[in-house]
Amino acid sequence: MPTLTQHALTQATAAIFRAAGAPADLAAQVADVLVDNHMAGHDSHGILRIPEYLQSIRDGEIVPTARPQILEETSTTALVTGNWALGQVTGLYAVDLAIAKAKRERVATVSVVQAAHTGRLAAFTDRAAAQDVVMFMFIGTVDRPMTAPYGGAAAVLGTNPVAVSIPNPGGAPVTLDIATSAIAAGKVKVAKAKHEALPEGTITDKHGRPSTNPQDFIDGGFLQPFGGHKGYALAVIAEVLSGALIGAEAYPGVTARSGIFIFAVDAGALRPKADYAPALAATLARIKAVPPAPGFKEVMVPGEPEAQMRSLRTREGIPIPDDTWAAVTAAAASVGLDLGSVIA
Amino acid sequence: MPTLTQHALTQATAAIFRAAGAPADLAAQVADVLVDNHMAGHDSHGILRIPEYLQSIRDGEIVPTARPQILEETSTTALVTGNWALGQVTGLYAVDLAIAKAKRERVATVSVVQAAHTGRLAAFTDRAAAQDVVMFMFIGTVDRPMTAPYGGAAAVLGTNPVAVSIPNPGGAPVTLDIATSAIAAGKVKVAKAKHEALPEGTITDKHGRPSTNPQDFIDGGFLQPFGGHKGYALAVIAEVLSGALIGAEAYPGVTARSGIFIFAVDAGALRPKADYAPALAATLARIKAVPPAPGFKEVMVPGEPEAQMRSLRTREGIPIPDDTWAAVTAAAASVGLDLGSVIA
Repeated sequence: MPTLTQHALTQATAAIFRAAGAPADLAAQVADVLVDNHMAGHDSHGILRIPEYLQSIRDGEIVPTARPQILEETSTTALVTGNWALGQVTGLYAVDLAIAKAKRERVATVSVVQAAHTGRLAAFTDRAAAQDVVMFMFIGTVDRPMTAPYGGAAAVLGTNPVAVSIPNPGGAPVTLDIATSAIAAGKVKVAKAKHEALPEGTITDKHGRPSTNPQDFIDGGFLQPFGGHKGYALAVIAEVLSGALIGAEAYPGVTARSGIFIFAVDAGALRPKADYAPALAATLARIKAVPPAPGFKEVMVPGEPEAQMRSLRTREGIPIPDDTWAAVTAAAASVGLDLGSVIA
Repeated sequence: MPTLTQHALTQATAAIFRAAGAPADLAAQVADVLVDNHMAGHDSHGILRIPEYLQSIRDGEIVPTARPQILEETSTTALVTGNWALGQVTGLYAVDLAIAKAKRERVATVSVVQAAHTGRLAAFTDRAAAQDVVMFMFIGTVDRPMTAPYGGAAAVLGTNPVAVSIPNPGGAPVTLDIATSAIAAGKVKVAKAKHEALPEGTITDKHGRPSTNPQDFIDGGFLQPFGGHKGYALAVIAEVLSGALIGAEAYPGVTARSGIFIFAVDAGALRPKADYAPALAATLARIKAVPPAPGFKEVMVPGEPEAQMRSLRTREGIPIPDDTWAAVTAAAASVGLDLGSVIA
């Protein structure tokens, strides 16, 4: 299993996207986001995705040379089209625009249509928090739904992720980044391969009956929203904000619907950082001081596991499973790049 | 069990708050909100609360003559103090301010400090949706925490509610309004009285071990966040937004912390209503078309159960349990009002 530094993995990833036709600046942006996801410990949104992105480029679903642009704009709002650019490029563009508007007007919203897969939302919202901007991000529009509504027996929702990052002058941002489905489809397949039961409340069979047997999902069942009707309601909110509200369906493309809704507030506009920093530190310390329940080592605040992993991987590098590395090497070869020569 | 019309119950409720010292306009506001909660079917946030509010007035924790005011303001933001006015008065004031700012600047945020108990948040966010404004509302600052953090064995969080209402030109707003605790403390006591087990994932015993036995909560246990670490993260977000971010702790009063964080987006600024209405209708119809799972009559969209109850109670009136009516009658008498004479 190769272990790479953040720098080396970023260089290698950028080289692949350049070979796939992306200009150097866009390839670098994608590489930064994918490798940031590894640094946060979310390898499922890292270079593992490269083969599917290259396939999407071949299929014309992602346009590697495309750049997002503003369709309509006011001082506090913007409607952006991703132009089916690489999704990470679109995410960064929209987020940087929202940050800039929030810095000028204190509050801003940015809507994005025609966006390709952006991956882990916290990679974008944490970027805002690092600049003292509170950011909310919702995605809820997909073509291949796998999640049933609460009380329903058919898939109509995606994983509909929601992220919020809050600036923390004293450390890592306070970050929520969740799928509103109770489990990822990939994890159901892993449980099936290991002959393990799933946690309760994660899937139903094809009739909509709750199940813990992975085979029931594979036989035509559905993912459940997390937390019953509450997570379901949040999934619908994400769906409407990033869809009907912003007009995602009015901008068709290679996929029928693909919207992002972003809301940003300049934390510095609400109170001076000198007052905010100690108040937040006191809040987090109060939560951290709670003794762990049996089976837990410590109470973590949201975003803390990712910060710990970032620290570890900065010291020790990013381990890449052999099968992932083999798949990425093959994907690189498919666009004419010898990955070994880039790394060596 | 008396059954009252919305109008009669509103008149009676307003009379009680006038008798308790509130000016007529403020008493009417509180009555409107409390009775609206009954109309939505959330009787737990209706006149049942009157005895505790009158006690808070006697204790000096609520000032019935007080009015909220703006402490600081820009075009897109405001910091409001509730001045420990009746919480419903403060909620309406802050929400109307956020609506007005969103209408002018398309996007706005309003922070509230020194707020008394506001009750059900959707009573406020739905008011925004009725005026074509998307509204988010977070409360996460309380003095008597009952909810443990994920993996923790002490209470440090409140019920930390989150609400979002999205305008729906074709019907009731799409509304999420949830506590981030998995269950209300009151429901644990009801289960105990009925000798019933609780759903999994709702409480822990005093050592932080998951339990379904209501007695374990009563013996010093804790509420759990809904949906495991995801609901916990949302609870912390609500805590930070309505606390450290806005400076709730810098405005002390009869309770140490009591903040509200609101943000608002003018839906009409994002796309024309003529385009939005059919797009939203199509989204909701797609979800509603999902066949019900076993044990369910139909798939509901968020806010629909409340809209159905509103329709029912408009036709048939609001039934008030005898013990609630007796308690409210006694509370009215404590401020010198014969409730029977108001209703008759």
